[in-house]
Amino acid sequence: MRKIGKQQIEDIAVGAAVLGTGGGGDPYIGKLMALQAIEEYGEVTLLDVDEVPDDALVVPSSMMGAPTVMLEKAPSGEEPILAFKNLEDYLGKKVYATFPIEAGGVNSMIPFALAAKLGIPVIDADGMGRAFPELQMVTFYLDGISATPAILADEKGNTTLLSTVDNVWTERIARAVTIQMGGSAMTAMYSMTGKNLRDSGVKNILKLEEEIGRTIRLAKEKNLNPIQELLKQIDGYELFNGKVSDINRKTESGFAKGIATFEGLHSYKGETLQLHFQNEHLLAKTDNRLLCVTPDLIAVLDAETGLPITTEGIRYGSRCIVIGIPCHPKWRTEEGIKAVGPRYFGYDVDYVPVEDLAKKGVLS
Amino acid sequence: MRKIGKQQIEDIAVGAAVLGTGGGGDPYIGKLMALQAIEEYGEVTLLDVDEVPDDALVVPSSMMGAPTVMLEKAPSGEEPILAFKNLEDYLGKKVYATFPIEAGGVNSMIPFALAAKLGIPVIDADGMGRAFPELQMVTFYLDGISATPAILADEKGNTTLLSTVDNVWTERIARAVTIQMGGSAMTAMYSMTGKNLRDSGVKNILKLEEEIGRTIRLAKEKNLNPIQELLKQIDGYELFNGKVSDINRKTESGFAKGIATFEGLHSYKGETLQLHFQNEHLLAKTDNRLLCVTPDLIAVLDAETGLPITTEGIRYGSRCIVIGIPCHPKWRTEEGIKAVGPRYFGYDVDYVPVEDLAKKGVLS
Repeated sequence: MRKIGKQQIEDIAVGAAVLGTGGGGDPYIGKLMALQAIEEYGEVTLLDVDEVPDDALVVPSSMMGAPTVMLEKAPSGEEPILAFKNLEDYLGKKVYATFPIEAGGVNSMIPFALAAKLGIPVIDADGMGRAFPELQMVTFYLDGISATPAILADEKGNTTLLSTVDNVWTERIARAVTIQMGGSAMTAMYSMTGKNLRDSGVKNILKLEEEIGRTIRLAKEKNLNPIQELLKQIDGYELFNGKVSDINRKTESGFAKGIATFEGLHSYKGETLQLHFQNEHLLAKTDNRLLCVTPDLIAVLDAETGLPITTEGIRYGSRCIVIGIPCHPKWRTEEGIKAVGPRYFGYDVDYVPVEDLAKKGVLS
Repeated sequence: MRKIGKQQIEDIAVGAAVLGTGGGGDPYIGKLMALQAIEEYGEVTLLDVDEVPDDALVVPSSMMGAPTVMLEKAPSGEEPILAFKNLEDYLGKKVYATFPIEAGGVNSMIPFALAAKLGIPVIDADGMGRAFPELQMVTFYLDGISATPAILADEKGNTTLLSTVDNVWTERIARAVTIQMGGSAMTAMYSMTGKNLRDSGVKNILKLEEEIGRTIRLAKEKNLNPIQELLKQIDGYELFNGKVSDINRKTESGFAKGIATFEGLHSYKGETLQLHFQNEHLLAKTDNRLLCVTPDLIAVLDAETGLPITTEGIRYGSRCIVIGIPCHPKWRTEEGIKAVGPRYFGYDVDYVPVEDLAKKGVLS
């Protein structure tokens, strides 16, 4: 158990955006929401999963929808509370603590904003160890934990409570509701016990995010290369160094989809990288080599500052370093690959671990 | 209070399809659902609105979605029960009786099927006095009664509970959910008190439907012209007599939309009628005259049998008589016209009562 204040929030927001692999929402908006809530209500207690009672009701708080929409439609701050209150009324039980459903600029921060306002702790675990675009893409799904009863709430005050036959149906119906709610909604779903979270969640994710943020911040202060420091810390791989030459994006069926093209610089001169995304970066390849593919993590970092860039933040002319990070082992199982591997997203390639690809790539 | 058995169901189904103005679902499927339930569970008690206690919880049961879909995706019969049980759990109160939300082949029948299974009465009132395509298009909306808490349930077992800021938001979100549920869903919404229904509903609608069905049935038995008998009974107007020469339909945003063209026969020879529909028939006009427009009722009847034809039942070559019927006075108020008049549906004409149009039409 420890307290999370403003400096920790700053670091966690950066680390969350790295592990968010381009998705999980804008780090700036997320950070502001959390900082403002801590300013007003005080520091938040962070619990280790082992500190949570077995039968405690724990519920992740998150935003669902295309992060691009959130830039124009900022949340009022009341929606997550409305969603939680509705869920508590439905279950007839108080929520003991909240936690992030995924790593990401917004979705790692919303739990802190909500926890500060409600006076409850945050637990150091999530359901992905990264960000993914669909709500059944969580370790909880692999372990048979239901997303429902699932609440969605918007900034106008509309709410829906879903009860479905499986988590894929929850995704379908919730996605349609989210689109009607203006493209993004706040959720209270995947309610579970402390024991469920301990058994199924990805532990110490916030600690890792904080360490990533601190590494980048301290490297800058010490005039070290932040990306090299980061790669050492997280066992990551440099995939490419280049300049954005083309960016093609559209918001489709509630997702921010697209392809960014990078022209190689320095030792990558003459090569071209294609980065495919669907809320998150999902596949990186050159003209003839696959470099990294979901569920492994692909992060785009500003070549100078080392700060992560979200899919909606990729701009023509930006100089970036693209890195790959091994995913949580649960995603490398047969069920994991089926749920979030390249073929699920429509890419006609087999999954190969980034540590194998990074050395030589495979012909694509 | 009286009992409704199989003959009454047969007549009500026909009358409901006439007042359903092409929508409200297929009369054949609806009738089968009600007949089967009465066969299995016995006759259903029909209450007059004056027989319902002031504070009794009463809830309409209906199908939402494009009726065309229902032809391919027949309901399991369990969805309306699931929807009602969820609503009772949420409200913590038993439903005293159900009633139709609208006139129509399916939506006048579902309450009987549900009532037979649950052993509750049906009340002789609805919220339209006809059928309309959107869920806020009820007299209850004009009288400020909320559609929420609104439950949608599908045949797979998925349910959603909506709580919204107004009935137009309920329509938007429920429509999106309905589409995800496969194009149609069963609902439990517009829960209200007996007094609400007495003050706001359209009374004796089932009695009228039964009389219409009986009139058409008896005319046939007595070798009388069923359509002339019907027009006398309901103060309706013959608008056109013709043969379907073109039918253009599509299912769009969960609605069955289209235009049917009729070539005139007999005294209408040389004239062409265009009939515009959106789940229901909404506007009838010849090349230069407007003949009838929403909220007044437009029914398409088989020229020989007098039986009503739904929008999805209109076939090339069918010989039909198109009739107009004045709507309930609540729809002719300023708020009524705003909610369901021609401009709401995108037709660039002003509302003129059918009794004025039927004599001479107005130039369109």
